Amino acid sequence: MLKRYLLAPGPTPVPPEVLLAMARPMFHHRAPEFDQVFAEVRDGLKWLFQTKNNVLILAASGTGGMEGSISTFLSPGDHALTINGGKFGERWAKLCKTFCIDVTEIKVEWGRAIDPQLVADALKKDPSIKAVYVQASETSTGVSHDIKALAAIVKPYSDTILVVDAITALGVFDIKTDEWGLDVVITGSQKALMLPPGLAFVSVSPKAWKLADQAKNTAFYFNFKKEHENQLKNQTAYTPAVSLIIGLQEVLKMMKAEGLDGVFGRQAMLAKAMREGLQAAGLTLFAKESPSDALTAVLAPEGVDGQAIYKNLRVQYGITAAGGQDHLKGKIFRLSHMGYMDRFDIIIAVAAVEMVLKGMGHPVKLGSGVAKAQEILLA
Amino acid sequence: MLKRYLLAPGPTPVPPEVLLAMARPMFHHRAPEFDQVFAEVRDGLKWLFQTKNNVLILAASGTGGMEGSISTFLSPGDHALTINGGKFGERWAKLCKTFCIDVTEIKVEWGRAIDPQLVADALKKDPSIKAVYVQASETSTGVSHDIKALAAIVKPYSDTILVVDAITALGVFDIKTDEWGLDVVITGSQKALMLPPGLAFVSVSPKAWKLADQAKNTAFYFNFKKEHENQLKNQTAYTPAVSLIIGLQEVLKMMKAEGLDGVFGRQAMLAKAMREGLQAAGLTLFAKESPSDALTAVLAPEGVDGQAIYKNLRVQYGITAAGGQDHLKGKIFRLSHMGYMDRFDIIIAVAAVEMVLKGMGHPVKLGSGVAKAQEILLA
Repeated sequence: MLKRYLLAPGPTPVPPEVLLAMARPMFHHRAPEFDQVFAEVRDGLKWLFQTKNNVLILAASGTGGMEGSISTFLSPGDHALTINGGKFGERWAKLCKTFCIDVTEIKVEWGRAIDPQLVADALKKDPSIKAVYVQASETSTGVSHDIKALAAIVKPYSDTILVVDAITALGVFDIKTDEWGLDVVITGSQKALMLPPGLAFVSVSPKAWKLADQAKNTAFYFNFKKEHENQLKNQTAYTPAVSLIIGLQEVLKMMKAEGLDGVFGRQAMLAKAMREGLQAAGLTLFAKESPSDALTAVLAPEGVDGQAIYKNLRVQYGITAAGGQDHLKGKIFRLSHMGYMDRFDIIIAVAAVEMVLKGMGHPVKLGSGVAKAQEILLA
Repeated sequence: MLKRYLLAPGPTPVPPEVLLAMARPMFHHRAPEFDQVFAEVRDGLKWLFQTKNNVLILAASGTGGMEGSISTFLSPGDHALTINGGKFGERWAKLCKTFCIDVTEIKVEWGRAIDPQLVADALKKDPSIKAVYVQASETSTGVSHDIKALAAIVKPYSDTILVVDAITALGVFDIKTDEWGLDVVITGSQKALMLPPGLAFVSVSPKAWKLADQAKNTAFYFNFKKEHENQLKNQTAYTPAVSLIIGLQEVLKMMKAEGLDGVFGRQAMLAKAMREGLQAAGLTLFAKESPSDALTAVLAPEGVDGQAIYKNLRVQYGITAAGGQDHLKGKIFRLSHMGYMDRFDIIIAVAAVEMVLKGMGHPVKLGSGVAKAQEILLA
């Protein structure tokens, strides 16, 4: 027997209350029972996104939200600026190319955050850029970008929007959509929102809708304007993922009970304990700056295969972490602490990493990292 | 938000597979669908009890199994020997008195195991004793009694049976019902069997049935003879707890997949890690000998209130342990490691105890106990 622990950066564990809610008998989405649930979650999402904007709810993974954030606001030939500090930053340019957008990509060393001045310079150089695409938290490297600073740079450009992939950020740390002036903010269900995969959420500002009105919409399903019109009538354009939306209702209740400050405070504490615990065990973080509170990427020690650490965690100890992607494969492994996570998830992770390294013959003092994590996690 | 961990000596955690099985739509107990399930679990219980006896399945808690083991085999005025090494040993005499049985009770210092010679002496002194009642694992103290030795003592008395409360023993460590000659073996669903409370199981030997034939049966519901006759026809005397029995089918599948040696080996490893981990953190076990692999009772350190430890584990860290009972209240706290438990349940328990003690100002080195547990739990 091997108990299973889900410490990958999505899907993350789903709370029992939410699983039970989703096990309710199915009901129809064009019926009063659904209307009430949908109105409640639409309201709750505004609270979570810290916005007055309508937050679109799409039956899609986060990538669907990213795709629609290109096809809805830009037309073929339009100029866009993308920030590539990892696997997901890279995806922006790929998506732009699919929709024949003319891309300028700022490459950031994986493990580092964007220097906002580079964005300021790029916009100055090419004021025809209609949208800047960035991650709030780059899942492949465990680094967060300074969204507040980027928003301040983009704001003065009246025809340029800032699009934020907050898929591993929203509900983890503070993202002030309206206060900072974020035009499009995207997240997915399977991260801090503690749901199974299957829903994407997108907040769209009036400035972004203005851009959408000028754009040649090149998509049918990810047509945000159509979705928006329907959702303002408390309906969806296409069949919604009913059970996930019922689960979302439960998730929002839980998050409201804890409060945004409570959630962010817990996530920050867990992230700190994970980072300092692993460092106390002798490991080095991959993030050279601005580590994301959502997940921690760790360098495999010299001479130890990162993929083997990742595999041993799963096979020997039942812990699903994540390995490195692309050129980081074998060099890092990643542990998530976002969503339905509490103190002992960190204790488990740090203890297990110590045990795996010990088992691989790496010199590690059992309990050394755990002790540090315990100190930070004291109630 | 506070995640909850169930580390009390019953109910214990129920595996997700079992919860899902029990969520199946209800069906009727006098129907072919139930017949098949019931036959399969009856077979599985024989495997688990290591017996050829029919194992009764009762809709009751373990105490129901204990009560029926008096009312079925003894008549008012009969002589019985009970071994009282704790709260549950004490219960035997209380039950006997309810049924007007003439009891000789051997009191064992709480925290110690019975010296089998005392039972040999008592039987020699009063060969009219029809039944010897004992716990395989005394849940209030975390001590196990030597059932194999007791069985060897009782066996030569052709009119005396050994009745074993194995409620926190069966499925934790080796109990060889037939090989050792245990006449009646009782367990409950909510311990090592990883089910919610609600079922009691009782294995009855031919020698015990002979005694039952001579007894004046003084019970209606806990009438084992009637239950036995029905179960031999693959039916129950009264309405069975259908969903729990469906859950049991799943539990037995899981246990068979792991094998008895696998289960006992895992439980022994976890118990060792819990005991040695807590001792490495500077704590003292309550059991002076023969600690049970099912749970560990720990002495509260000098000047620290055991009930406060128990309460802080729950309130500050979400861990439900157990306190001490009767005169042990405030002096000990208890942590279970039986049933659906794996390595990190022990790590969590030891880490949390360290953190609670630290929080109470007790000098404890964080990570000291965890490191010892990790060493024992290395895969």
